[in-house]
Amino acid sequence: MASLVQKAHPPLGGEFTDGLRAIFGDRLHFGEAVRAQHGGSESHFETMLPDAVVFPHKTEEVVALVKLCQQYQIPVVPFGAGTSVEGNITPIAGGVSVDLSEMNQILSVNPEDLDCTVQAGVRREELNEHLRDLGLFFPIDPGANATIGGMASTRASGTNAVRYGTMREAILSLRVVTPDGRDIRTSGRARKSAAGYDITRLMIGAEGTLGIITEITLRLHGIPEVISSAVCSFESIAGGVDTVVQSIQMGVPLARVEILDDMQMKAVNLWSKLDYPELTTLFFEFHGTEAYVAEQVEIVRDIAADNGGGDFHWSNLPEERTKLWRARHEAYYAALGLRPGSVGWPTDVCVPMGRLAECISATKEDLGTASIPATILGHVGDGNFHVIFVLDPDRPEDLTEAERLNARLVGRALEMGGTCTGEHGIGLGKQDWLVRELGDTVDLMRMVKRAIDPNNLFNPGKIFTL
Amino acid sequence: MASLVQKAHPPLGGEFTDGLRAIFGDRLHFGEAVRAQHGGSESHFETMLPDAVVFPHKTEEVVALVKLCQQYQIPVVPFGAGTSVEGNITPIAGGVSVDLSEMNQILSVNPEDLDCTVQAGVRREELNEHLRDLGLFFPIDPGANATIGGMASTRASGTNAVRYGTMREAILSLRVVTPDGRDIRTSGRARKSAAGYDITRLMIGAEGTLGIITEITLRLHGIPEVISSAVCSFESIAGGVDTVVQSIQMGVPLARVEILDDMQMKAVNLWSKLDYPELTTLFFEFHGTEAYVAEQVEIVRDIAADNGGGDFHWSNLPEERTKLWRARHEAYYAALGLRPGSVGWPTDVCVPMGRLAECISATKEDLGTASIPATILGHVGDGNFHVIFVLDPDRPEDLTEAERLNARLVGRALEMGGTCTGEHGIGLGKQDWLVRELGDTVDLMRMVKRAIDPNNLFNPGKIFTL
Repeated sequence: MASLVQKAHPPLGGEFTDGLRAIFGDRLHFGEAVRAQHGGSESHFETMLPDAVVFPHKTEEVVALVKLCQQYQIPVVPFGAGTSVEGNITPIAGGVSVDLSEMNQILSVNPEDLDCTVQAGVRREELNEHLRDLGLFFPIDPGANATIGGMASTRASGTNAVRYGTMREAILSLRVVTPDGRDIRTSGRARKSAAGYDITRLMIGAEGTLGIITEITLRLHGIPEVISSAVCSFESIAGGVDTVVQSIQMGVPLARVEILDDMQMKAVNLWSKLDYPELTTLFFEFHGTEAYVAEQVEIVRDIAADNGGGDFHWSNLPEERTKLWRARHEAYYAALGLRPGSVGWPTDVCVPMGRLAECISATKEDLGTASIPATILGHVGDGNFHVIFVLDPDRPEDLTEAERLNARLVGRALEMGGTCTGEHGIGLGKQDWLVRELGDTVDLMRMVKRAIDPNNLFNPGKIFTL
Repeated sequence: MASLVQKAHPPLGGEFTDGLRAIFGDRLHFGEAVRAQHGGSESHFETMLPDAVVFPHKTEEVVALVKLCQQYQIPVVPFGAGTSVEGNITPIAGGVSVDLSEMNQILSVNPEDLDCTVQAGVRREELNEHLRDLGLFFPIDPGANATIGGMASTRASGTNAVRYGTMREAILSLRVVTPDGRDIRTSGRARKSAAGYDITRLMIGAEGTLGIITEITLRLHGIPEVISSAVCSFESIAGGVDTVVQSIQMGVPLARVEILDDMQMKAVNLWSKLDYPELTTLFFEFHGTEAYVAEQVEIVRDIAADNGGGDFHWSNLPEERTKLWRARHEAYYAALGLRPGSVGWPTDVCVPMGRLAECISATKEDLGTASIPATILGHVGDGNFHVIFVLDPDRPEDLTEAERLNARLVGRALEMGGTCTGEHGIGLGKQDWLVRELGDTVDLMRMVKRAIDPNNLFNPGKIFTL
């Protein structure tokens, strides 16, 4: 795994290269090291090199690039922070990797409208640092410090989605360069619109196959008066899940609620030098006024106690909260830490809430007899959870075992009315599952792709084969 | 206006009619009265008759209909409750009006998953009656007792959208018959998914031009412990709007907040025999626990007082609340009541929150010098408001005046970064404005339309011309 494979794609012609240089100057790269940085993911997929990497600074350069690539029929693959995990940005047909990380300007913040517009390469942590002094925050948090453009492209969500929604809800408008070289805005800045087809939502989650997102207008929220965090352990998975389901049914607006299984807790304790009980554990966050947060905590504490929860540790201290969420955000690296030198395969599914306890429990049983270590963690308020398979890169049988376990997991989620991916996207890894999940609906996706990108140059081979 | 125009469309051939009869039996209608019921809207658009009306009972019949219509190249126009206002279901090219009102089964309710699946013809009030005993509710409320399928097709929203979102957020999955006669499901029942293009959102708001929605899976919510309503009058529009903006910035989760101008309040008082002050007025609703609702009311009351609000009348009594919201829901008829024998033209725009007071105030100034009566009311928490022009159907100059005022209104909203329609859709009425708002993005919509409905048979001529 992770070997560098030189693509069979013919080398870029001199005229095309001259065209690239005219647009990008010294922001055009052919070196193997740079290309290798743009050839893979943080996951187990094989690295494949693009033929060139460019670093645009403005939308107009992306337009010029796209027109050039159309002229010479060269694939174009957008790249954000490289933190996707399903091979979403692997340039399997070579071509040009368009690294948007230098388009990192926060273009405007409108506190009275609770929105902002950023370039695609802005990372979510930078954005929140910028917003903090204005009393605002951007809630979508997929764990990794991804770019906003990448998060839009994979329809990312994460820990706050239970309260604040996913990128689908967070985005008001996009600026997109389409395969025919148009520079479009998909919507105005109004908070809702019934004006024609929802091109904004069509682009969100399209993984760069329909257009390159260069600017994003985002909904923002006021930083709550009080933010409180809590941790509670459970003897059973069902006890933890039921606590969340009942809390949501009671109308408690949980801002975050994460589940970590015993194995993941063990990994977290080792990695972050903590001493939590190594049991199924919920990490909570509550937002609101002082009185209302206290009330939420009280309700959830009672529900947890009724479901076999242990001590309910809660705190209003920012440093406690930071420690807790840092541990959660490092969970992936913590899992890899269980097996030095390992490579991870993080997969995710999402099921209707009422099936979640059963789905996690059955998965846990599978993992108990597996020949590789694996942890479970997830955004339990959405019915979404991850399994991280921890693989020895020198043991091909580990990959086979992970494939077997993943197939059982995804098949189970689909049988329960769920989806093969809650937030990672399809990329290369879930294409067969997408067809199994949605059948003929995938043909409709293909119709849309052929109409908008008839030459199949935009991140070709992702989501589905044409 | 509202004259019955027989379409120039050639009469349906005998073989095609035989085919329709084979599918629908006595649920196939050619009578002029039935056709006229399916030829217009509650608004000012000219009525145009379909050639036939059918009443399917199941998706399979819609599939058979679509295949037959493709064979004979006959247009197909879906019809729900006929409450849309932009000519969205006017069969301008004749063909078959597909009345889904007899597909009115609630197919399943899953309280543990907080979702349900209904046929497209179920009306929102029926659904909520059914859900009440389960302690659940479906929040989207566009005023009219529309069908869920129609609400999906126009991306409807309404009074609760500020807290619970629009149809875009409320729908988990759709069953759709596509122009090529496929019967697809756009998604599973998971609360989020990153599995491929968002075909669900593509169909929501497509006004039947890309497919006929036959079933909808909806997110539900638990009925809050306490529901409280309040009314407050303001001397100025800005005072009312600023109260809402500041409340939202403070994080108060307003469940409903409606603005009505002095003219609309006068109409409401007359129509509903009430005696509210005839000033700019906010109608509020608060949801939550007893303590939290009390806290919300207190915060908003203080903010209102700071913004020149008068007495803040609030109540937890269901009968008070019902009276209040019935008055709000009958606002359209109340406005028409200002001028006996009139016909209404309700238009809507949506602007960024920070521009709302300015937009409403400028509109109010326009209306002050207009030659026709008009009222303003809106979902102020979203930046969305309506103007109802009250026209004398015998005075063509009234229509000209309304066109002038509407053009100023929409033009102003677009200049402010807003949209030409927050929730009514484009239909026939806003097509030029859509192009002005989104430019080349409309071409992308056309590409999608041509790919999915190459023969242009599904509700032809709506949203844009091809």
